[in-house]
Formats: sequence, C-alpha cells, structure tokens
Amino acid sequence: MGHAVVSPGSRSAPLALALAGDLRLRLHVVLDERSAGFCALGIGKATGVPAVVLTTSGTAAVELHPAVVEASQSRVPLVVCTADRPPELRGVGAPQTVDQTQLYGRAVRWFCEPGVAEAATMSTWRSLAARAVAEATLAPAGPVHLNLAFRDPLVADPEPLPSARPDGLPWHRVPLRSRVGVPGEAEDGTGVPAAERGVIVAGAGVDDPEAVHALAAARGWPVLADPPSGCRLPAPATVGAFDALLRHRPYAETQVPEVVVRLGAAPASKVLAGWLAASGAHQVLVDPERAWIDPERTAGVVVPADAAAWCRARAAEPGPGPGQWLRSWSEAESVAQEAIDRTLAHHHEVTEPGLARTLARALAPGTTLVVSSSMPVRDLEWYAAPRRDLRVLANRGANGIDGVTSTAVGVALAEAGPTALLVGDLAFLHDANGLLGLAGRGVDLTLVVVDNAGGGIFSFLPPARLVEAERFERLFATPQGVDLVALAALHGLPAERVADVAGLGAALDEGTQSGGQVRVVVATTDRGANVAVHDEIHAEVAAGLERST
Amino acid sequence: MGHAVVSPGSRSAPLALALAGDLRLRLHVVLDERSAGFCALGIGKATGVPAVVLTTSGTAAVELHPAVVEASQSRVPLVVCTADRPPELRGVGAPQTVDQTQLYGRAVRWFCEPGVAEAATMSTWRSLAARAVAEATLAPAGPVHLNLAFRDPLVADPEPLPSARPDGLPWHRVPLRSRVGVPGEAEDGTGVPAAERGVIVAGAGVDDPEAVHALAAARGWPVLADPPSGCRLPAPATVGAFDALLRHRPYAETQVPEVVVRLGAAPASKVLAGWLAASGAHQVLVDPERAWIDPERTAGVVVPADAAAWCRARAAEPGPGPGQWLRSWSEAESVAQEAIDRTLAHHHEVTEPGLARTLARALAPGTTLVVSSSMPVRDLEWYAAPRRDLRVLANRGANGIDGVTSTAVGVALAEAGPTALLVGDLAFLHDANGLLGLAGRGVDLTLVVVDNAGGGIFSFLPPARLVEAERFERLFATPQGVDLVALAALHGLPAERVADVAGLGAALDEGTQSGGQVRVVVATTDRGANVAVHDEIHAEVAAGLERST
Repeated sequence: MGHAVVSPGSRSAPLALALAGDLRLRLHVVLDERSAGFCALGIGKATGVPAVVLTTSGTAAVELHPAVVEASQSRVPLVVCTADRPPELRGVGAPQTVDQTQLYGRAVRWFCEPGVAEAATMSTWRSLAARAVAEATLAPAGPVHLNLAFRDPLVADPEPLPSARPDGLPWHRVPLRSRVGVPGEAEDGTGVPAAERGVIVAGAGVDDPEAVHALAAARGWPVLADPPSGCRLPAPATVGAFDALLRHRPYAETQVPEVVVRLGAAPASKVLAGWLAASGAHQVLVDPERAWIDPERTAGVVVPADAAAWCRARAAEPGPGPGQWLRSWSEAESVAQEAIDRTLAHHHEVTEPGLARTLARALAPGTTLVVSSSMPVRDLEWYAAPRRDLRVLANRGANGIDGVTSTAVGVALAEAGPTALLVGDLAFLHDANGLLGLAGRGVDLTLVVVDNAGGGIFSFLPPARLVEAERFERLFATPQGVDLVALAALHGLPAERVADVAGLGAALDEGTQSGGQVRVVVATTDRGANVAVHDEIHAEVAAGLERST
Repeated sequence: MGHAVVSPGSRSAPLALALAGDLRLRLHVVLDERSAGFCALGIGKATGVPAVVLTTSGTAAVELHPAVVEASQSRVPLVVCTADRPPELRGVGAPQTVDQTQLYGRAVRWFCEPGVAEAATMSTWRSLAARAVAEATLAPAGPVHLNLAFRDPLVADPEPLPSARPDGLPWHRVPLRSRVGVPGEAEDGTGVPAAERGVIVAGAGVDDPEAVHALAAARGWPVLADPPSGCRLPAPATVGAFDALLRHRPYAETQVPEVVVRLGAAPASKVLAGWLAASGAHQVLVDPERAWIDPERTAGVVVPADAAAWCRARAAEPGPGPGQWLRSWSEAESVAQEAIDRTLAHHHEVTEPGLARTLARALAPGTTLVVSSSMPVRDLEWYAAPRRDLRVLANRGANGIDGVTSTAVGVALAEAGPTALLVGDLAFLHDANGLLGLAGRGVDLTLVVVDNAGGGIFSFLPPARLVEAERFERLFATPQGVDLVALAALHGLPAERVADVAGLGAALDEGTQSGGQVRVVVATTDRGANVAVHDEIHAEVAAGLERST
C-alpha cells in the first residue's frame, strides 16, 4: 500500500482531497511541513517505494528542502508535490506565492511543472504520475518535484479522473530495478587482485549481506561492517569493533591490507578512514549509482556495479578461503567484544556506548532501528555487537540532525514490525514537531533519547580542548534545559527517565513488549563521563590486544 | 549594535568564535537553524540593519531557506553565512556536505563563494563583508548568502585579522538609503489626477504616515490603512474598518472611487482587493522597489518612487482639501468602530476579533506588535481601532505561518521597548522551537496565542462548506491536541489560559507591566463561534450604515 503525507493548506486542497479519497493510499496528516518531508523520507527509506508528500504554496513548500536534500544524497525515492498559484498570480504580490520553480535546485532527480490543472491537459496526468514514480525510483533513486498550479475554485464536485489505459496497465510501466550490469573479468580492471591481506568495508546500501560474506569466505578476508550495512552478522568474517581495534596503533600497523573492497556508504569512523587512506592498499570502490563516496580519493578502481551481484561474481572465482589473516582479525574481534562487555560491566550508570550496545542487543528480532547522526550512529557503529534480524537505518546522506524523529515515524508507519529510534537530546528537540500527532498514528515505536544536555560530539572535537569552558558550553554544547520526559508527556506519549543500567533494562523490556504503542525512554548521561568511558573501552581493547599477542 | 544569530556546529567554528569575540555584536545562540533564520529576519525587520545568521554545513544550511525566502519577499536585509567544506571535499561523500552553491536560488540578492579562508585571500575579506552588508541593505533590501569554506584545523590560535583601512573607514562605505528619486510632474504620467472621489490604500512599507496623511488632507481623500502601514492613526482621514464597511454592498457601491493611490504592501482583505479591482478607478501604485504588488493587474500607473517623498510632493500641489467625500468615509468609520465595540461588548467570552482589538488597544505606547499570518493579521486589520505609538510588523512577504515566534523573538532582541506577538495555535506549534532558550534571552515579550484548536481560517474557506466534517477536521482544521500552557511551562515561561474578557484584561495588564520578561497568554476560542462573531460584527456594521443614511 502506498503512503501520502499531507500538510494542511488551501491551495493544495484539490490534491489533498484526491489523495484522501484514494483507498490505495494510507494518508498521514502532518502539521509541520519539515516533519512531513522527513516522514515521507522515512517511508521511502524503509520500503524503497516513494511516498507522496504534499504541501500548500509558499514557504510551506520551502520547508521540505532539508528532507529533499537528504533524500537526494541518501538516494531515497520521494515524490514531492507542491501546490502553487497559477502563473498569472506569480511575482505580483499574490498571497503565499513564492518562486517554486526549481525550488530545490540540483537536489531533485526531476522537476516538472505541468501547468495549471485543467481539462486541456487532463489526458497527460496519468503519464505524468507514472513518470514521477519512475524518475524517483530508478537508480540513483531520489526526490522528484512536481509543482502543481491550481486555479480557483479549489474545492468543487470533482470531475472524473482521466481514464485509465484500456490494457489495464499503469500509464507507463518501468522496470524499476534495472540493476547495473556486473563487469565480469579481471581483465576489465574491475576484478580484485588475489591477495592474502584484503579487507572488505561494508556500509549502508549493501542489500545482500550473504553475498558479501560469501566473498569474504572465498577470499579469507574480514568484513569491517557498520550496522546499516546489514553485514554485521554473527559470521566468522565479521569485524564489528574495527574502530576500537584500529585505535590501537600497534594492531592497526600489523594489519595493514594490500587490497580493500569498499561497499556502500562509508562508516562514520574517522579512525577507519584514516587507516584505509594511509594503507597504500589497492582499493576497489563498488559504486552502482555513481555516488563517488571517496573523500580520501583512494579508490584505485571504481566499479559501477550492484554490490550484491558483484560480490557473488567475485565469490565464484577461485580463492584461498579462510586462513591466518582472517584468524588474526577474528581473534582481535573477540578480544574487542569481550573488552567492551568487560568495561561496560563495571558501569552501573547508563553510558552512551552501553546504551547503544544494550539497545542493539535487546530489540526484538525483526525490529528496525533508526539511528540519529552525530553520536548515536557512532556509538552504534563502534560498540554494537554483531547480531541477526536487526535492520538499521540512518540519514547518512547529509548527516543532518534535523528531522530524525520524523524519519523514524515514517519508518514506523511503513514497517510491519516494531521500530526503535536512538537519538540525542539536541536532535530530539530539533525535531520535537515530529511528536505532533504521534500518539494517534498507531505505530509501534520506541524512542530512546540520550540526554547528555547538549551536543556530546563536541566533547570529542577540538573546541573542547581549545575553547574556554563557558564559551564552549554556549557556542558548541548548547544545553537547552528542556525536560524531555515532560516534552513527551505534552504529546501524550508515555515516557520515563532512566539513569542506571537496571532501569534501562526494565524500560527496554517494557518498550519491546508494548507492541503497537509509542514509548519514550530518556537515558541520562554526562558528556564529560562519556569521553572517559570511550577512552576506557579503547584502553581495555588495547590491553586485550596486547595480552593476546 | 549589530546582532549575530549562531547555530551550533563544527565546520562553522572559526566564524562562530570570531563573532563571539567581537564586542560590537550581540550574539544569540539558537539550536534550530530554521528558528535562527527567522530570528535574524526579525532583527533585520525591526531595525533595517541586517543580522548575521551562521550555520554549519549540510542540511543545517538548508534549514535557513524559509527565512531567506521571507526576507527576500518582504525585503528585509539579512546576511546568511553558511560554513562549508572546502571544494576538494564536495561531491565525494564527505560527511555533512551538500551542494551549497546557490542554495537559495533566486531568493538572494547576492551569492558569493569567496573560496577557502586562507592567507592568500585575506586582503579581500573586509571588502567582502562591506559589500555583503551593502547588497543586503540597498533597495530592494533582502538576503545575501556567503558560502564560506573552512579547511582543518577549524579551531586554533587565530591569526590577526586583515588590517583595517588606513583612513579608518569600513572597507567600502555605501550610502545605504539612496532613495529612488521622485518624478515631479503630472506631465510625466506619475502624478495623480484631480478627483473628488479618491482613496489612498496604505500597507506595510510606508515609513512616513504623516506624509500620507498630508496627501490625504490636501486632496480630501480617506486613507484605508492596515496596521503594518503605520497609517492607522487617530486622524480625520483614517479608515480602519474598511473591510467591514466594504462588506456592506450598498455602502461599497456608493463609495466607488475614481482614483486610487496604493502605497506599500496590499492589505489582507479580499473584500478590499475585489472592490478596488471592480471599481474601474485610475490606480496609481507607488512602487519604490519594483515589487509589483498588483495581483489584480489594475495599476494604471506604477511610480518607482519612495512613498513618503512622493506623497509629500503630491501633497504640496494644490488640492481641494476635506469635503463631503471624506466626511462620508469618516462618518462610516465612526459607525463601524462603534458597531464593532457594541457587538463585542455583548461577548463575555474571548472572541478573536475582540482579542485583536483589545490587544491593539491595551499595549503600552512604544510597543512593537508582531502579528502572525493567517487569521491574526486579518483580525488585527479588520478590527483594531486606530491608535498611536504602536508599531505592527508581520511576515507578509510569503505569508507563511512558519517561524512566527522566532521572528518575534528577533524583533524583541532588537527593540529597545516591549514586544508582543499575536499568533494562532498552529503557527505557535509550528515554531515551538522558537521557545528554546527564550526564557534566558532577556527580552520583554508577551506571546498571545489564539487557541481555537486548529486552523481557524479554513472555517472561512470553501472546504468548510464543501467537505464532509470529519475529513475537514482531519485535512484542513488539523487540531493538534497539545496543551499550549504546558508547552510554555516546558520552556520555563510563565503562562496562563484565559477564556473570558475579564481574564484576558487582567492577563494583558499583567503582561504589559512585567517588563523585561517573557509571558504567554493562551486565549481559548472556538472556530465555529468565530465565524459567527465575524458575521455578527459585519451585520451590526451594516445595520449601523443603514441607520446612518
């Protein structure tokens, strides 16, 4: 079933009423257009099928821009419909009229202004809609923008829609998953050299983890997998703790690879990125949608192929299979996972690494976990243990902290199973409007908010060392002083605050058992202590590695 | 003193620290960039001097787009600084990097990308800043966008800034108020024909009400003045109740003018616009900044002149002075104002017209009243009695309901005296993030929220009649079910709810006496009853006009 997200308005009334009257669509009404945009983004992200988002004219349309940019950069299909005044009312001071032509610039895959909705053009409407869906969905998927002018009267007895095709097809049927072909041979320069010391780095966008692990098994290489890749499975090749391992310089230096295969988006770890860049390895970037995710400019070979198909083709080639190289990674991974558990066991208060690790472990099989940019995506990447049956999604196109809750709401609306969100207090407040109406949307969503009273990531960045404390708090940490439990309660959502591990466990148990509801768990942490516990884990991993060699 | 509005971020750290270190600037830190943009807009609107707004890279920069559009359309100066990654990190998947070049399209007066901040270009920086302020401020004023790339390290001991000019001037001094000249003679086609039956319509942007009334006195014409025009003074020519008067068809038909002079933005009244368009009058649009505010396309003469100077020039020409025509308007105005008072006196519950009228009357001299789009701007326009010493501001460039509270916060930060806001519940919720940190900003701001549990304007529009009730509530009225007093309390703001006139009076008295604080008054009204009381007022005005003829 398709989804439409609609914000209230007058100019948009004809289309809002048409969407509300179409039984093939689920309609979600969202007051704040910014939230509406991210909600529609979440639906497209979860399903791969674009949601329609509709706003009235003026700044209402402009409000969608952040979600449009994120959809563009994370390659999520989205059909943006903005109502507009007819051309004769533009640029002459008519109310709520702005220049909506090409409003989102180069961020959309396709912009179309089909002219005023009137009888003369009616025969083109079904074609237009079919093409909009195709343009949004064909690789690289992304947003399309239809700017739709309506003339008064805006509400009237509707005339019949243009007739369907006699053959019953939608107007145009477009094979949407036309995968990029897989170049077959090493001679093309798209193969992977045989090498003992290879690593596979897997990020978001890999949609067939088994294929990746098949390649890993054939070559005897580890898979350094971030959670959104789906590849952080309990499999022999999985290395989840790559960030902590590579922070230990002696280990990082012994493990320098000769060959690197990069699949999907880049993990957040700067340690990993720096290590890869310094390795001098032959790097193969599998890049089906020409995203060129290569800020270090180290990709020697860029393969425009679907990751799964390419991995399967490479896995079918003869390879040495697992050996000492892979064992050296697997053993280190075990050391690291044990060191993380051991360190966290000493903490009875909630820690941010512990929260990410506990949450990723506690969620019921089949849950989708949406994770916010800034620290949550990092804590999950660095500290979540491998597991099955957990889908992880994040807005990592532009890495914004805006619209995070609304994205999770969209995911929850579209998913059959439970959804959870891990988000910091600033991102939660930034999109507080994502909570509007949430209690009534009938979703199964657990919102876990890390409340460290400000932007915890800045404590890891140079301003924390170099800027005087008061100015650091004011300009960077920016604590907001809002009671997040009361905020949730304001929106009719059951919420509780936890500060210790026992309370967290109980809250998450309750959350995962209260199917079909929205619940908010606010976990109190401390920004200074958070840096310390990160350091503590890294020291314990380092000590473990020292002992095991 | 200048103002800078800064949102937290890392890439923007160099400029954030520079702004924080400049004692000539007041710095305001705002978490949500959307709110930051509107806050800076409010400062520029109140002062005519652009505020700097600074965000980090990525969707943070995109979040400013709604405020940029409003600044463009309402011709408010604004200097937008977005931090960016250096060019070599763009388009290659570097974190928080989006295409920020020309991000706001045609909505900015000037876009500049001066390249990475580095020693080689340092000698150009003062010139760049001087030009940015000039481009934002020269007519038509508006937003400028500087996209500023910073390379690591982002925080370090700063080098000295480029040296100032030896002559002590800012780098370029630009005479900012270079008014458009006033064409002098009727022979140019820019004069106004002599006619008994003329009217002056004054909207926002008229900065010299005395000049307008001088012209009115010279010609014997009424001034149909909306509150943002500043022309709704207790003066013989003032007609404030034009909307109610012109709703009475017999009156509207007897008063058809031969000449219409239109100054500033158009009032919100559709009744006025329709009456003017149907009048067949010779219409003169004074349009100093080529805004072409003429959706009805009735301006026969478009005069590219400053309104005040033009009015004074025309007022100096010989004219007949006040006569029967002006008396017919003045008497009707008295009838209408009395009818409004009489009708409202019967209502002990808070009504929306009554609230607007009471508020406009109760505010202390020297107060600035910010009024939201949608119903508040209309209720104020239609029902506020003439008075002195009240400045009224509104976002009427694009007429959005977004960013309203933040705009008022910006106005309050910039104004020396007290500020008030009249806003509906949906707009208040839309910009709830405008309340973040507000309690600590040291402003004198009274927020008056009309809480009719949804979008009251839709009750006046066709969907209210033509769409089935349940669907109307869901798609158009969209009640949000949030306790607005609790929302204010969440942000540490004293708030109370009033439902009757006595309570409202007490709350406003208290509000106007609690200088230097923020207070929230939530007035409960009913959407259905609101339509009825509008009708009641209009009927009473009509009856009064019938009796007086």
